[in-house]
Amino acid sequence: MTITIVGTGLIGGSLALDLRANGFAERLIGVEHTSDHAVEAIQKGLVDECMELAIACAQSDVVVLAVPVNPMLHMLPNVLDLIPANGVVIDMGSTKHALCKAVDNHPRRGRYVAAHPMAGTEYSGPSAAIPHLFHAKAAILCETERSDPDALKLAERLFKSLFMRMVYMNPAEHDVHAAYVSHISHITSYVLALTVLEKEKSEGNIFNMASGGFASTVRLAKSPPKMWRDIYEQNTENILDVLNAYIENMTQFRNLIQEGQFDHTFSLMEEANQIRRILPN
Amino acid sequence: MTITIVGTGLIGGSLALDLRANGFAERLIGVEHTSDHAVEAIQKGLVDECMELAIACAQSDVVVLAVPVNPMLHMLPNVLDLIPANGVVIDMGSTKHALCKAVDNHPRRGRYVAAHPMAGTEYSGPSAAIPHLFHAKAAILCETERSDPDALKLAERLFKSLFMRMVYMNPAEHDVHAAYVSHISHITSYVLALTVLEKEKSEGNIFNMASGGFASTVRLAKSPPKMWRDIYEQNTENILDVLNAYIENMTQFRNLIQEGQFDHTFSLMEEANQIRRILPN
Repeated sequence: MTITIVGTGLIGGSLALDLRANGFAERLIGVEHTSDHAVEAIQKGLVDECMELAIACAQSDVVVLAVPVNPMLHMLPNVLDLIPANGVVIDMGSTKHALCKAVDNHPRRGRYVAAHPMAGTEYSGPSAAIPHLFHAKAAILCETERSDPDALKLAERLFKSLFMRMVYMNPAEHDVHAAYVSHISHITSYVLALTVLEKEKSEGNIFNMASGGFASTVRLAKSPPKMWRDIYEQNTENILDVLNAYIENMTQFRNLIQEGQFDHTFSLMEEANQIRRILPN
Repeated sequence: MTITIVGTGLIGGSLALDLRANGFAERLIGVEHTSDHAVEAIQKGLVDECMELAIACAQSDVVVLAVPVNPMLHMLPNVLDLIPANGVVIDMGSTKHALCKAVDNHPRRGRYVAAHPMAGTEYSGPSAAIPHLFHAKAAILCETERSDPDALKLAERLFKSLFMRMVYMNPAEHDVHAAYVSHISHITSYVLALTVLEKEKSEGNIFNMASGGFASTVRLAKSPPKMWRDIYEQNTENILDVLNAYIENMTQFRNLIQEGQFDHTFSLMEEANQIRRILPN
């Protein structure tokens, strides 16, 4: 099978690595907007060659879109026009509602499968691609009733070949849940980094002390702004909903400390410990 | 050398494991407030035996205090009275100002070395003890000019035997910095967990999607409330200072998203990326 990967960064590149290794793809074509990235993707063996989007689409069984969600929004209808009759387009975007809406009335809507693999690291670009990124992770598939059965089946086969488990949702539901388990984590990390970096200016080098706990909480603050800027734009309402709840809870926690109600903070922390139920290890 | 470990949980137990493995301790005595923990600490081989605090102290070269910081505050002056003339007390507490103040006028102040090893995990109790927890981490030593030179030297030898690097600070400075690189991370994690658990109640199981990023950001929310309650009480002022800055930054970030100023969030995220400078990997 010939697969085109549009955007051979962390997600697209890691996908290419595994689809080649497990034999799912016989030929991998990359589409990159900078020649630096194209050269890197080829040198790293992520793809066999790079070419223009239209030329790549015309000869592909599957086109995977793994670019930030704003350019994706403009690219998706175009790619649906460019693929062969039996071609399939799968996107890897972190938002789903706007994307599905963008092709709602597209005559070839059936050739598109809306997906979000719940996997990633804080790094980006072809150099960030790693094997097994998707292993045992969830692949969210949205609005699958709008995909042609053979297109959906192919997408499911692709994700299963990576040992992913399928989760089905409607796009609006996906965007709410993604705000809670992914988008909010990134914002709390970014803001933590900003706060601590600000303090460092006035207090000198306090990072001599930084240890595992701080590192893990602030890790996502290294994530690429380009990707996240677009997610905020496409998922504004849900993100605001979460952020408001978060700020409210944080303010309550602050007030309890301020008022010396430490036993009350104890109860809240016991409640928070219930996260073990969801993330046992 | 005979070393007593008061509190054979994550910190005390991990310390015991390594001090036995590297030959620093010939005999290890545990002091535990519950017999369950005492049995577990012995069965796990963390300590050779458990006994009453006073009996243990009387026969020890070094007594290490690794209990939550409120009980520590009451225990420290008492332990200074109980140790032999050449004995040394080292604490592992996450706050330093209140502890140092508690023994400021103690006639045996010189036998105490105030320490905070910057290491930990989200787990607690003897079962959480692991080897090499302290390896390559910072050992903050405070107010060392108030320790007798031989006591300080012994504490430094102990930490060096674990491959730790020493960092010297005054207690007030320590508490400010600990609030920034450790205490705040725990609070942002606890509040994130609370917010997401709250949402789960109304939205059903959204955790099907939880992946690495969420897990790492929320990991510290599994930490023991008992330990953290006391830290908030002893470091209230610094924690409030950080929390207020954090809430202010978070509110600004929320407002930018609300006003559609996505390019401005981009600049803030680029700033936050500078955390790479401090945590390159």
